[in-house]
Amino acid sequence: MSGSQSQLSTEVMEGVYLCSKLDLPELFGSEMDALPNIRMYRPEDVPDPARIRFALVWQPTDDAFEAYPNIELVQVIAAGVDGVLRTPGLPESAVVTRVHDHEQAAVMAGFAVWNVVWHHRHMGCYLAAQANKDWERISLKTLRPPSTITVGILGYGLMGRTIAAAVGALGFNVVVATRTAGTSEDGVSRIAGPGAIQQVAARSDILINILPMTDATLDILNSDLFDAMPKGAALIQLARGQHLVEDDLLHALDSGQLSGASLDVFRVEPLPKDHPFWGHPKIVITPHEASVTSPSAVAQALDRSVRELSAGERPSTAVNTAAGY
Amino acid sequence: MSGSQSQLSTEVMEGVYLCSKLDLPELFGSEMDALPNIRMYRPEDVPDPARIRFALVWQPTDDAFEAYPNIELVQVIAAGVDGVLRTPGLPESAVVTRVHDHEQAAVMAGFAVWNVVWHHRHMGCYLAAQANKDWERISLKTLRPPSTITVGILGYGLMGRTIAAAVGALGFNVVVATRTAGTSEDGVSRIAGPGAIQQVAARSDILINILPMTDATLDILNSDLFDAMPKGAALIQLARGQHLVEDDLLHALDSGQLSGASLDVFRVEPLPKDHPFWGHPKIVITPHEASVTSPSAVAQALDRSVRELSAGERPSTAVNTAAGY
Repeated sequence: MSGSQSQLSTEVMEGVYLCSKLDLPELFGSEMDALPNIRMYRPEDVPDPARIRFALVWQPTDDAFEAYPNIELVQVIAAGVDGVLRTPGLPESAVVTRVHDHEQAAVMAGFAVWNVVWHHRHMGCYLAAQANKDWERISLKTLRPPSTITVGILGYGLMGRTIAAAVGALGFNVVVATRTAGTSEDGVSRIAGPGAIQQVAARSDILINILPMTDATLDILNSDLFDAMPKGAALIQLARGQHLVEDDLLHALDSGQLSGASLDVFRVEPLPKDHPFWGHPKIVITPHEASVTSPSAVAQALDRSVRELSAGERPSTAVNTAAGY
Repeated sequence: MSGSQSQLSTEVMEGVYLCSKLDLPELFGSEMDALPNIRMYRPEDVPDPARIRFALVWQPTDDAFEAYPNIELVQVIAAGVDGVLRTPGLPESAVVTRVHDHEQAAVMAGFAVWNVVWHHRHMGCYLAAQANKDWERISLKTLRPPSTITVGILGYGLMGRTIAAAVGALGFNVVVATRTAGTSEDGVSRIAGPGAIQQVAARSDILINILPMTDATLDILNSDLFDAMPKGAALIQLARGQHLVEDDLLHALDSGQLSGASLDVFRVEPLPKDHPFWGHPKIVITPHEASVTSPSAVAQALDRSVRELSAGERPSTAVNTAAGY
């Protein structure tokens, strides 16, 4: 084992940061510099583009990959890869890997649970009452026990599972929708197959979306879905802006079909200043930060992917580009 | 079994509602009326005070018990019994029972977790940014992974355990303080004995108080405790107002020793309009509703206590009046 490691440590693979929006070297550079098998460059500092064998990416430009003919690995800094997969210049032969990090999933679960309780306990009413110095007891007569409430989760990967466990620990019923059949955790009802999303929504007093973004899930949060939900249900949207038909949500909120929504992602980000979501009294907005990947998790993911690639293995977090996640 | 039940069902015990603050018959009457072995009266409707053998109580007046010489059972409608135990006219021979309800504990856990995430993720900053239509990403560079954060819990009864499990499911380290040694759940560090509260506080980035109110815990949340905590820690106070030295908290917040506090209970309730807590930017106030007992849980608790009493058993939720909880 130590022999194999010392052999690997002599092979240094060169890579490049490719991102149009964030300063990846600033965010992750110190972690990357500590990896012995990896040497990372900004595009402008690359000594020999032909030696670049991998890229660390987030929202790359369409032609970002053009200069590098020998890229074998594209490591995304997040769990969602839909944006990178749609990049026109993405090398077809490259393996795309993502971050699969339990700590990131735990952060996401905390954020999801905060929003579940926000809607269940009407926490916004308490904050408003405090602003008026009002001692206003709202739960004494109206609290619905969690055992009478169903929280639906669309998507059951690492994040969906972690959210399901955290929500279940608070006494709610949990039902999840997945594309394929498989096992679920204790206390979680699982619905698979083509109608799963609609069936889960129809049972959900609070619905959490954590689906991957694919052709099949585009616009999935729409009027048909909202109308199928119990009247007064709430939506927690943590996945991708393109899942949500924004006008349909506004209509569902204004008609009272939905009682509230927590939105972390949007079709256009940053959300434009004149967007009606900002000032809507039933909407909580956060700036696509439900979870963030830690620099150490990104570094570990890249290190592992590069080692697996060096050893001739398919990286364990390689995405299925046909499925889109 | 059916013979025993039909025998019990023939014995009807009479009881009285005793409360100075809430309309207990309005809140719980329909549930109580459905219990076959119990007949409940408002004080003014009691036909024969000598036949009253139990009371359902919350904040009774000092002389509330005076008219009823044969009370054997005092069922409190909540988990905390400190107020009832301090009632001067409480019959010494009566057994005091409380509600021990898993669903109530789950509600409390949801509320605790909401406040943990409020402090961990600086959720108030997001709400303020939304009010200004600002897309302000705060987690990208500053998020502390939950595995690096310790959440301390003071008190490890049913509620403390349920909170510990829910917080642990979000990836935080959990350490609890208890008066006596015993078992803890997986992933929970337990500290028992006289110094436990101080030791737990000294490790807690976020400290949750769910202790019972006794002579030993009066004023336990004070400057000494706050000074022992890590700088910038947060307090979540869910137990009793008398645990907290209010001026000490204001000092700790204003000096920056503590970064924030969530307060559900207060020395005077309702919190007076001119109290400095109301407008404090680092304090979240809720009106003693972290959890509320459901009418069905109260009815089940009373039904069980009355059955146990009828059978000559000590009720399973009887409190230790010497310990005070």
